[in-house]
Amino acid sequence: MNSKIKLGILGGGGDSLIGVLHRIASSMFDQFELVGGVFNPELKESISFAEEIGLPTNRIYEDLDSLIEKEKALPENERMQVISVLTPNFLHFPMAKQLLENNFHVICEKPLTTTYEEAKILEELRKKSRKVFAVTYTYTGYPMVRQMKEMIAAGEIGKVHKVDVQYYQGWINEIIHDKEKRSSVWRLDPEKAGLSSCIGDIGTHAFNMIEYLTNLEVREILADLNYLYQDNRMDIDGTILVRFSDYAKGVIRSSQIATGEENNLTVKIYGEKGGFKWEQENPNHLYLMKEGQPMEVLKPGHSYNSKISLNGTKLPPGHPEGIFDSMGNIYKGVARAVKKGNFWPGEFPDLREGIRGVNFIEKTVESHQNGNIWVKLNH
Amino acid sequence: MNSKIKLGILGGGGDSLIGVLHRIASSMFDQFELVGGVFNPELKESISFAEEIGLPTNRIYEDLDSLIEKEKALPENERMQVISVLTPNFLHFPMAKQLLENNFHVICEKPLTTTYEEAKILEELRKKSRKVFAVTYTYTGYPMVRQMKEMIAAGEIGKVHKVDVQYYQGWINEIIHDKEKRSSVWRLDPEKAGLSSCIGDIGTHAFNMIEYLTNLEVREILADLNYLYQDNRMDIDGTILVRFSDYAKGVIRSSQIATGEENNLTVKIYGEKGGFKWEQENPNHLYLMKEGQPMEVLKPGHSYNSKISLNGTKLPPGHPEGIFDSMGNIYKGVARAVKKGNFWPGEFPDLREGIRGVNFIEKTVESHQNGNIWVKLNH
Amino acid sequence: MNSKIKLGILGGGGDSLIGVLHRIASSMFDQFELVGGVFNPELKESISFAEEIGLPTNRIYEDLDSLIEKEKALPENERMQVISVLTPNFLHFPMAKQLLENNFHVICEKPLTTTYEEAKILEELRKKSRKVFAVTYTYTGYPMVRQMKEMIAAGEIGKVHKVDVQYYQGWINEIIHDKEKRSSVWRLDPEKAGLSSCIGDIGTHAFNMIEYLTNLEVREILADLNYLYQDNRMDIDGTILVRFSDYAKGVIRSSQIATGEENNLTVKIYGEKGGFKWEQENPNHLYLMKEGQPMEVLKPGHSYNSKISLNGTKLPPGHPEGIFDSMGNIYKGVARAVKKGNFWPGEFPDLREGIRGVNFIEKTVESHQNGNIWVKLNH
Amino acid sequence: MNSKIKLGILGGGGDSLIGVLHRIASSMFDQFELVGGVFNPELKESISFAEEIGLPTNRIYEDLDSLIEKEKALPENERMQVISVLTPNFLHFPMAKQLLENNFHVICEKPLTTTYEEAKILEELRKKSRKVFAVTYTYTGYPMVRQMKEMIAAGEIGKVHKVDVQYYQGWINEIIHDKEKRSSVWRLDPEKAGLSSCIGDIGTHAFNMIEYLTNLEVREILADLNYLYQDNRMDIDGTILVRFSDYAKGVIRSSQIATGEENNLTVKIYGEKGGFKWEQENPNHLYLMKEGQPMEVLKPGHSYNSKISLNGTKLPPGHPEGIFDSMGNIYKGVARAVKKGNFWPGEFPDLREGIRGVNFIEKTVESHQNGNIWVKLNH
Repeated sequence: MNSKIKLGILGGGGDSLIGVLHRIASSMFDQFELVGGVFNPELKESISFAEEIGLPTNRIYEDLDSLIEKEKALPENERMQVISVLTPNFLHFPMAKQLLENNFHVICEKPLTTTYEEAKILEELRKKSRKVFAVTYTYTGYPMVRQMKEMIAAGEIGKVHKVDVQYYQGWINEIIHDKEKRSSVWRLDPEKAGLSSCIGDIGTHAFNMIEYLTNLEVREILADLNYLYQDNRMDIDGTILVRFSDYAKGVIRSSQIATGEENNLTVKIYGEKGGFKWEQENPNHLYLMKEGQPMEVLKPGHSYNSKISLNGTKLPPGHPEGIFDSMGNIYKGVARAVKKGNFWPGEFPDLREGIRGVNFIEKTVESHQNGNIWVKLNH
Repeated sequence: MNSKIKLGILGGGGDSLIGVLHRIASSMFDQFELVGGVFNPELKESISFAEEIGLPTNRIYEDLDSLIEKEKALPENERMQVISVLTPNFLHFPMAKQLLENNFHVICEKPLTTTYEEAKILEELRKKSRKVFAVTYTYTGYPMVRQMKEMIAAGEIGKVHKVDVQYYQGWINEIIHDKEKRSSVWRLDPEKAGLSSCIGDIGTHAFNMIEYLTNLEVREILADLNYLYQDNRMDIDGTILVRFSDYAKGVIRSSQIATGEENNLTVKIYGEKGGFKWEQENPNHLYLMKEGQPMEVLKPGHSYNSKISLNGTKLPPGHPEGIFDSMGNIYKGVARAVKKGNFWPGEFPDLREGIRGVNFIEKTVESHQNGNIWVKLNH
Repeated sequence: MNSKIKLGILGGGGDSLIGVLHRIASSMFDQFELVGGVFNPELKESISFAEEIGLPTNRIYEDLDSLIEKEKALPENERMQVISVLTPNFLHFPMAKQLLENNFHVICEKPLTTTYEEAKILEELRKKSRKVFAVTYTYTGYPMVRQMKEMIAAGEIGKVHKVDVQYYQGWINEIIHDKEKRSSVWRLDPEKAGLSSCIGDIGTHAFNMIEYLTNLEVREILADLNYLYQDNRMDIDGTILVRFSDYAKGVIRSSQIATGEENNLTVKIYGEKGGFKWEQENPNHLYLMKEGQPMEVLKPGHSYNSKISLNGTKLPPGHPEGIFDSMGNIYKGVARAVKKGNFWPGEFPDLREGIRGVNFIEKTVESHQNGNIWVKLNH
Repeated sequence: MNSKIKLGILGGGGDSLIGVLHRIASSMFDQFELVGGVFNPELKESISFAEEIGLPTNRIYEDLDSLIEKEKALPENERMQVISVLTPNFLHFPMAKQLLENNFHVICEKPLTTTYEEAKILEELRKKSRKVFAVTYTYTGYPMVRQMKEMIAAGEIGKVHKVDVQYYQGWINEIIHDKEKRSSVWRLDPEKAGLSSCIGDIGTHAFNMIEYLTNLEVREILADLNYLYQDNRMDIDGTILVRFSDYAKGVIRSSQIATGEENNLTVKIYGEKGGFKWEQENPNHLYLMKEGQPMEVLKPGHSYNSKISLNGTKLPPGHPEGIFDSMGNIYKGVARAVKKGNFWPGEFPDLREGIRGVNFIEKTVESHQNGNIWVKLNH
């Protein structure tokens, strides 16, 4: 009998898109059963949201404190085992901390925390609690991203000597060029949105992709951010030079003012023997290029793919799966970890990847504010 | 309170891919709750499958008869309202018939039945029962397919004068070229698989797409099928000339021996003022071409899309949704029909589309067997 | 010393695009020197055109008779050796005939003649004269078309069992929907434009491509043409079923009302072991698909290409060459044939390919006019 | 009467690819007649090359001195008017200087000179001589590049706030990873190849494209180059941050170790109202993106294109022209300038663009060698 893992969710109510993404993803492989949570700061709204999605309201709680108290009072096999944290960024840390302290497995949206210091505290707590802790860098769940990671690890393109990751969007144009709007939205208010807009929101995905795919650590970075207007206090564009070593380098390009772009995350990894390209908006094509040979186009579901890639494909080749399926694969990995106590490397982004991401954001801003100088990431 | 629709499923157990597709699709919009069904001819296997997917086994039945009996004994608000029929083709008719006779809403996989005669019987029964009856031509759920239908209806490309739909796969190569295999698989045994392999399985999707998108009826067809080997008894490839009228024509091209193709359904509709192209393997791009003007590429989630298209997009532009989402949209339409008693034209393929499909298959084979002559479809 | 071949041109004056194409193509490999010809029925205009293109006017002639007379009076090493026939279709036959009778090598635009009978007469004449006779099916000069031909011949995709060639344009829309225009343009006047518009102009390219690439002969065809309006006397669209044998089949799709299409010639060849795709508007990509393997994208100029493909590439990979280069390759082949007395198979389309083309056009119309029946091509 | 411009060429003999490119380009529009030059340092080889390409040898000279002396002795209407300089980089300056001093129009390959100082001397000389001086940044001749420039100038995308140009190749891999080879090829020997390999050869195209398209001047740059091995003395990869102002920024990415890339120059220009994308390997597609609107794909030869774009298209839409045609358009512009004394802005890259390019290379190396700091370009 597959007894489903009891899942709770913090945040994600109302019109939240991230809520839809996590709910559908969690249900995809018959591994989780959403039983309750705190969808909203207002209990009334939490309850009405639960009703809207056809969820019994008996395990909808006023806040995290009461959730913990009540759930821990339940028999172990009924209790929530995994909690997804989908709340605003500044709440990730206190909530994740409390969850670890109370022995829940955690799935946390990125960025993990708002400071590196907080992130390190979570690391300590996790060491003690030994709980599963996933950070949902959604794009790592795509089958062809996993396939790329495996092939790089297997030496398919040789030693990596250059990476180039782009994450371009254009949606902030309609806000940024309007003086009124740009001074009022919470997204561009450092008090509310934290250190960085563009890098914190999307640049961090690009950074994660680099380390996830190459299995290498970025040693140092040099960042140039753009604010576009003197009265704007948050970066909405940035280019970041990246070094693994003196001879292996790269660049991260990230923008919210790349007018007309939707969600264009594009990854290029070049090694001594070959190169890979992958585009998030066309996620089922992976391009393998070798000097002087025909380019190969790999697609999901074929037997030439690795086990972990195939594990993330539900239908035969030619039946396009998308971003829900990508997140579903991350949840599937968490389920394996929770149930079996282990998981495959790369099956979901772990706490460590969340920590690296927060460090990257901090160091990017530091580099920029000090005149575009090289700064080392913490190890 | 959103009280979820109670859903039962017939078939779809074990390794069935169509089962995965329907289960995930049904759960996507918080509208359905799978409560039981008959997943397998063997009750034991049905139960063990239910356990595997974490479903309570109390409403897993031995067969359709006992399902009907027991469910009808339940209070109305607990009873299954909608039953999805995912069994082998020859069972669609008797099961759908029994369901209509017992006042269940039906979601049925294509092809609707194995003969046109059977299909007409279902039509009669549905007239009486007034139940919702959807036939899951999956691809009609894609947002950009819906958008195309709406734009054609709105006159965007003028009067349609040419259609060209391709459905190419290559998977049967590894069977067809092996004398042993091709004489033993059930797929190529007319006793088990019915009248047609290639046209029945995929050509019918192409035909449906034409009528769905243009809102026109095909008047007559001329078919040339290919069997590839003299000892093979089922078509594995076919080209079908299509006429709406003396001056509006088209072609359906369908193959299971288009080596290297995966699931390449490609639609082209040309009218007096413009043309559309759409490819299933890249479902989020819709190409609009007008003579002497830049080609436009429409994508989901933008405000320029129609209401029904936007209704089928859960995330902002650039977050690729796929075939599960497409089927999810069909289920969403069924939910609206069940709950509100009405639905938007095109929101899901109705019984009538299933009937047309069966007629198309029969007439295709008739045209071919009589020496590639023109035959009229039934009205 | 490379003594250039003296080239004469018939037709191609004024605004003629085909004239530009042939002139540039002939000069590309330093093999031909344009020395004169008859650009226009009016001598005065011929001379003024020569002046416009900076050509000495001493070898501009009143008509073909005087060209032949005067050129034959010149010493052999100054005489025109090759004459390109770019005149309206109905003049191809008499001019090519006269040229062969007077021992000139001929490059002739397609369609070779307006009837199969005429084409056979040219064949007889050529047998006697043993002159080089090229028919400029321009698209056969593309390096990746040649590469595909070679790989098919080498068995790369196994025995060919299905072909599908599309040639879609949309330009005639602005004429065909206007009653006034469609009854007045010469293109749609059978007296002036011959038997067929769409098939004669572009369908014939599709047909040539099939036989050129597969090295197979089409045995029989069944055609359905579209005239779109009752008062229109020329086909502007057509679909043609094609059979090599009882078990190797295909389809040609050709249209001038595929609204928004520019010059979309797309070729797909499927064999037992693999499939090829190629698109004229993106001519430097050749797609090789094998069941269950990554698709390969071949491009020009790489050492993996065959000798004849590489022979048609002037720059390293990534420097896109186009249609002028394609025609230039055909001229290069003719130069080799003229100078060395031999050429590689496929280096340029020969008289025989022109004859097949004319036969195809006639048989297409015959099939359509007799109610879409199968007709055999002449051998 | 179109009297063709007499053209001489310095360099470009033997297997030179640049020679092929310039010869074909010069002949495309019937504006130039190649009459002679100095193809090779050895007169004997120059003459034998002339014979090989079927050129009379009477105006093949021993060196530039004798060319100048003999040509100036000819009557003005027979004399070479324009000389193309295709020699190794270090000879561009002395040759161009001598040509200007002797009143020839000059077409010069890039980079214009090996130092900024030399470039400024040419500028002075040109001021006096008032001759036409083109620098062949080949890619500016593509119709869709010209179209983009015009549309940006016309305000189609509003004020430009971000540029991103990539020029990736992978060909140096087979040299760079081999210690023997990398220490012996002239390309990686600073004595022979000048200051920079990657930036000097291809980065400079990317820089030119930015200023050509936006009509803006880059104010300052910060460069990080990669040498890949400690014993390699020339950059083979580099990323360069670019600033027009404090709020308009960009990035140039250039590499010869982007394994598997052929000649991938990709341009993205984002403005307040829209964005453009263009790729050299698919040069006939120009992508125009506006937030929330369907992407438009513009192609050559349509009436929606500007005059200067259409001027560079010889055939109707759908007949792909390529890089020879691009260079042909530059020659056509030079012909207009020579004959009419004026030309359209953007019709060919002028001396000034060559000077900027040299300055860019110098400043790039300066920035890198000083620890990746910001350096201002000369005005």
